[in-house]
Amino acid sequence: MVGIIMGSQSDLPIMEQAANFLKTLEIPYELTVVSAHRTPERMFDYAKTAKERGLKVIIAGAGGAAHLPGMVASCTTLPVIGVPILSSNSIDGWDSVLSILQMPGGIPVATVALNGALNAGILAAKILGSADEQVGQKLQKYQDSLKDKVFGTVNDIKNQHPNHFDQ
Amino acid sequence: MVGIIMGSQSDLPIMEQAANFLKTLEIPYELTVVSAHRTPERMFDYAKTAKERGLKVIIAGAGGAAHLPGMVASCTTLPVIGVPILSSNSIDGWDSVLSILQMPGGIPVATVALNGALNAGILAAKILGSADEQVGQKLQKYQDSLKDKVFGTVNDIKNQHPNHFDQ
Amino acid sequence: MVGIIMGSQSDLPIMEQAANFLKTLEIPYELTVVSAHRTPERMFDYAKTAKERGLKVIIAGAGGAAHLPGMVASCTTLPVIGVPILSSNSIDGWDSVLSILQMPGGIPVATVALNGALNAGILAAKILGSADEQVGQKLQKYQDSLKDKVFGTVNDIKNQHPNHFDQ
Amino acid sequence: MVGIIMGSQSDLPIMEQAANFLKTLEIPYELTVVSAHRTPERMFDYAKTAKERGLKVIIAGAGGAAHLPGMVASCTTLPVIGVPILSSNSIDGWDSVLSILQMPGGIPVATVALNGALNAGILAAKILGSADEQVGQKLQKYQDSLKDKVFGTVNDIKNQHPNHFDQ
Amino acid sequence: MVGIIMGSQSDLPIMEQAANFLKTLEIPYELTVVSAHRTPERMFDYAKTAKERGLKVIIAGAGGAAHLPGMVASCTTLPVIGVPILSSNSIDGWDSVLSILQMPGGIPVATVALNGALNAGILAAKILGSADEQVGQKLQKYQDSLKDKVFGTVNDIKNQHPNHFDQ
Amino acid sequence: MVGIIMGSQSDLPIMEQAANFLKTLEIPYELTVVSAHRTPERMFDYAKTAKERGLKVIIAGAGGAAHLPGMVASCTTLPVIGVPILSSNSIDGWDSVLSILQMPGGIPVATVALNGALNAGILAAKILGSADEQVGQKLQKYQDSLKDKVFGTVNDIKNQHPNHFDQ
Amino acid sequence: MVGIIMGSQSDLPIMEQAANFLKTLEIPYELTVVSAHRTPERMFDYAKTAKERGLKVIIAGAGGAAHLPGMVASCTTLPVIGVPILSSNSIDGWDSVLSILQMPGGIPVATVALNGALNAGILAAKILGSADEQVGQKLQKYQDSLKDKVFGTVNDIKNQHPNHFDQ
Amino acid sequence: MVGIIMGSQSDLPIMEQAANFLKTLEIPYELTVVSAHRTPERMFDYAKTAKERGLKVIIAGAGGAAHLPGMVASCTTLPVIGVPILSSNSIDGWDSVLSILQMPGGIPVATVALNGALNAGILAAKILGSADEQVGQKLQKYQDSLKDKVFGTVNDIKNQHPNHFDQ
Repeated sequence: MVGIIMGSQSDLPIMEQAANFLKTLEIPYELTVVSAHRTPERMFDYAKTAKERGLKVIIAGAGGAAHLPGMVASCTTLPVIGVPILSSNSIDGWDSVLSILQMPGGIPVATVALNGALNAGILAAKILGSADEQVGQKLQKYQDSLKDKVFGTVNDIKNQHPNHFDQ
Repeated sequence: MVGIIMGSQSDLPIMEQAANFLKTLEIPYELTVVSAHRTPERMFDYAKTAKERGLKVIIAGAGGAAHLPGMVASCTTLPVIGVPILSSNSIDGWDSVLSILQMPGGIPVATVALNGALNAGILAAKILGSADEQVGQKLQKYQDSLKDKVFGTVNDIKNQHPNHFDQ
Repeated sequence: MVGIIMGSQSDLPIMEQAANFLKTLEIPYELTVVSAHRTPERMFDYAKTAKERGLKVIIAGAGGAAHLPGMVASCTTLPVIGVPILSSNSIDGWDSVLSILQMPGGIPVATVALNGALNAGILAAKILGSADEQVGQKLQKYQDSLKDKVFGTVNDIKNQHPNHFDQ
Repeated sequence: MVGIIMGSQSDLPIMEQAANFLKTLEIPYELTVVSAHRTPERMFDYAKTAKERGLKVIIAGAGGAAHLPGMVASCTTLPVIGVPILSSNSIDGWDSVLSILQMPGGIPVATVALNGALNAGILAAKILGSADEQVGQKLQKYQDSLKDKVFGTVNDIKNQHPNHFDQ
Repeated sequence: MVGIIMGSQSDLPIMEQAANFLKTLEIPYELTVVSAHRTPERMFDYAKTAKERGLKVIIAGAGGAAHLPGMVASCTTLPVIGVPILSSNSIDGWDSVLSILQMPGGIPVATVALNGALNAGILAAKILGSADEQVGQKLQKYQDSLKDKVFGTVNDIKNQHPNHFDQ
Repeated sequence: MVGIIMGSQSDLPIMEQAANFLKTLEIPYELTVVSAHRTPERMFDYAKTAKERGLKVIIAGAGGAAHLPGMVASCTTLPVIGVPILSSNSIDGWDSVLSILQMPGGIPVATVALNGALNAGILAAKILGSADEQVGQKLQKYQDSLKDKVFGTVNDIKNQHPNHFDQ
Repeated sequence: MVGIIMGSQSDLPIMEQAANFLKTLEIPYELTVVSAHRTPERMFDYAKTAKERGLKVIIAGAGGAAHLPGMVASCTTLPVIGVPILSSNSIDGWDSVLSILQMPGGIPVATVALNGALNAGILAAKILGSADEQVGQKLQKYQDSLKDKVFGTVNDIKNQHPNHFDQ
Repeated sequence: MVGIIMGSQSDLPIMEQAANFLKTLEIPYELTVVSAHRTPERMFDYAKTAKERGLKVIIAGAGGAAHLPGMVASCTTLPVIGVPILSSNSIDGWDSVLSILQMPGGIPVATVALNGALNAGILAAKILGSADEQVGQKLQKYQDSLKDKVFGTVNDIKNQHPNHFDQ
């Protein structure tokens, strides 16, 4: 239901975070490399057939002058989530962020934070969950689990700084 | 089905573009002001009851240190689309872009371009269209209409520069 | 008298510098994790009850799209000091700096430098010292000790470069 | 009780916003020009005598390479609020923001947003209100009035977009 | 021999400068609108058939998340010159500059300055002139004419400031 | 046929990538150090005699305030490709990028990405290939080889994530 | 004694401020246009003969990719003051600032603020005054006059806000 | 004759480069720590007495919100050279660069590149050499030695790439 693509194999360590989240929520996904610049025909085919192949959302990650998310979005009516990736020779990630985010009117890309592939996976689930109550409930559980983790660290810190208030 | 909120009435001229797009596609929406900083309780209530009130997607626009989209996202499992707005005294829009885009792992906001409320409306429709074939078809028509407009300008320019090739 | 909160346990090595300064001046403080995005209710409770619990100043540190200082400020009349933190996947700290600093008119956050938790602790003491002469005197001593350290390095350098002037 | 200073008379239209807020809350203030670069002795005298003259907080606004807030902070134990001002020939305000915000450890400046003199006035009141319950109550009223204004715009927009939900 | 394309009709006032320069040097060109995002198929066809249609160089201008130059370059072995354009809602032009300049290894775009369409036209002529001595000579004349203009202003200024040296 | 120059020997590890690409395509080149600031006369001689020595394209790489590409371009009608290099004490590469890219009207430099010497080599080949069919064919083969590499990684990833779709 | 040069006649309104300051101090100067990119030979001649023609300091202003100050500095042992100028199509002045400021080790340019030609004139006088006591005294008078102006505005503001302290 | 000061002992490894250059040219200098923020009185004394103590030029280096060069310049008519230093917790050096460079009209600082202390030393010598022919001659020799070093690397590279032209 979710297509995860990236411009280069070097993006895999980041983009796997999206896959792993979807796996946790038992949402089917596919994951592959599609390069806008080196395999433009493959990109076009991927984007144009995405809907008929049953995809509901596409997550596309790329670094530098990152054209993959925007170009895929221009060839499908599916929502496309863009993940800017901090690649080598990037100018601090600005190139990737701006070339994904600043799409012209008509062709949106749902951009997440630099290297934010985990959030891309969550956002894909939120999009599916918008119409699928089961996914919505799993997301609520996930969001609750984040709270639990924070409360765990609250206790950790209390133990480390036991009498910080009464000096 | 779509909630459109903004941090201040001054954001209305931008945010209306999202509303107008949804109106064109006959997608119901509500539009109002919710300030994260001046009405935090209202923001919490809005976000927490959004799902039960039947919303499927929330579009949130704000300028400067723009906390509205991220805070709403932290209180709902619905997908939240963030619109950075170039407000007065902004540092060229960077403040709004970064404070919406760079959300920490766990709480994504689907960020669009600076002042990109039109794209936020389209993205909301794409999210709904992911599960609703009728909306998907309307989006396909819209995307086709963009092509037609480009071909119109192609002809305009051909007429303005009739013999540009044979000098 | 001073509440020190941070968005994540990973901020602790920075934020402890504020705590350590206050300890040196024997100003009571509490230190804990409050996440705007993962525990929004806890954040609200913390901010709304801060004054009645006897706090006079709140120091809030966060990285990335850092909403904690601004949201806390929106729920209390206490002065809130914001510490931008350089977290992983930050865009060189700009996201944190701008999302804390560029608050809209009505809800100020007293922002200090990137990773400037020591200065946040000093600023908290200056705020308390504004009405409490004893704290003011301790601050004067601290400021004098900074001078002494500089004069120490002056001597160190003079010894390392003994005859630099008469060549 | 509050000293408002600025590097140049051209900063007055911005800095008056701090003064006007304090006037509304009936908090005494003084307002004058003190230039770090053109009148360094005056700056030193101002900062060094501020406390004995009864000031509790200093608000300092400056543009470009803005040294006034930081230099004043180095000569007093009073809390100093810095207002970066967008002056002509500034590089989009970055110079002023960074030269006020990024103070070294030991000498904090409580920095507010670019041109954020209103927030500087509110922050000064919050600092005074930290020890003075009357000021605290006035601030609570002010913060409540911000809410009322938002609810006013909520109604305005509802009237302008009466049947936006039922299309 | 030179194809000039732009992402939108609004880029025409800038991109005409390239056309006008080529006209002056009597180098044939074509000029039209090709949108990467709104007419992706047209872009592909344009780029793939460019060489067989006799083009030697392509100049592509676009604003915002500017994917046109890079995508065209990925579909042809012809040299592609990219012109970043400062469009409305751009973040000071950085988006356009970075999304054209920062192409990954394998697919270069010869990027010129922001709004630098005149230089794109000159660069196209330089590329043609590299193998065509006649164009090379015209370029030499053009470069000489730039010198003449400077010497004209030298005289203008000498007349305005006649006795600046002997005061 | 291609002159590769760099401002400093420390640029060699980057600039060799251009040389290596040309070697692969059997395009003759020369490679040397020419410093705009330390050997201005050498730079002038190099640029002014480049054409008569048989060069068709010049690739110039430099870091920091990088004047070499632009100054060479001002002394020849040959196309000049500029490679911004991330040197020590650079401000994240911005200085080099902007001082090469932002040339005034009249004197273009074909700028490639930060450290993009490989792309400079490819662009030089594209310029030669614009008039030389043999080079054009080699470039087509190279561009095809990029595709093959992507398809190789596609298979790699398929093997690593064999059953990612059917969970 | 001071040579004032600029890359283009359009820089004259800024660069005249340096001339006017020198005129006030009765320091002889010459002022002309020297373009690094359009008249490289003239630039070389100017720089190489500057010392023997009796110049003691050179002020060079330029916008965009501003190579004039650095190139002049590479051809003379005289101190060169660089004035970054905000020209049209500049990226907010960053290009000019960085291409003047970030000179490599060995060839310094004394850079002043964006559009800071007045300060360039003052700096030239300070350099001359370093060895010429008469100029030093004139500079002291000028610096004193800046103080007087500030004290004038102090009185102005006191009159506008007569009873600001006693409310 | 040259005073070299720095805001903190941690700046010494950079600032020594200025001292070492002056030593090579046998120009007397003094080197010490003067902190604008921690020892403001010392800074004032240093600047005010610099001229009468026989200094001709002051070099001041500082990081972060770097007020030392500008404040020293405001208290003396001597030329002041500012060295922005990349300190820990700096935002990529921008804070130091902008707070030294962007001085207001009236008080110039001759700013060199980030960490450019070597160039500061050379610039100081150029200022002295402007009136002292002996120093001018030494500078000419130094500038010639830079050329020699480049020609050395030219030969190195020729040996490494012996037959690069005839393939």
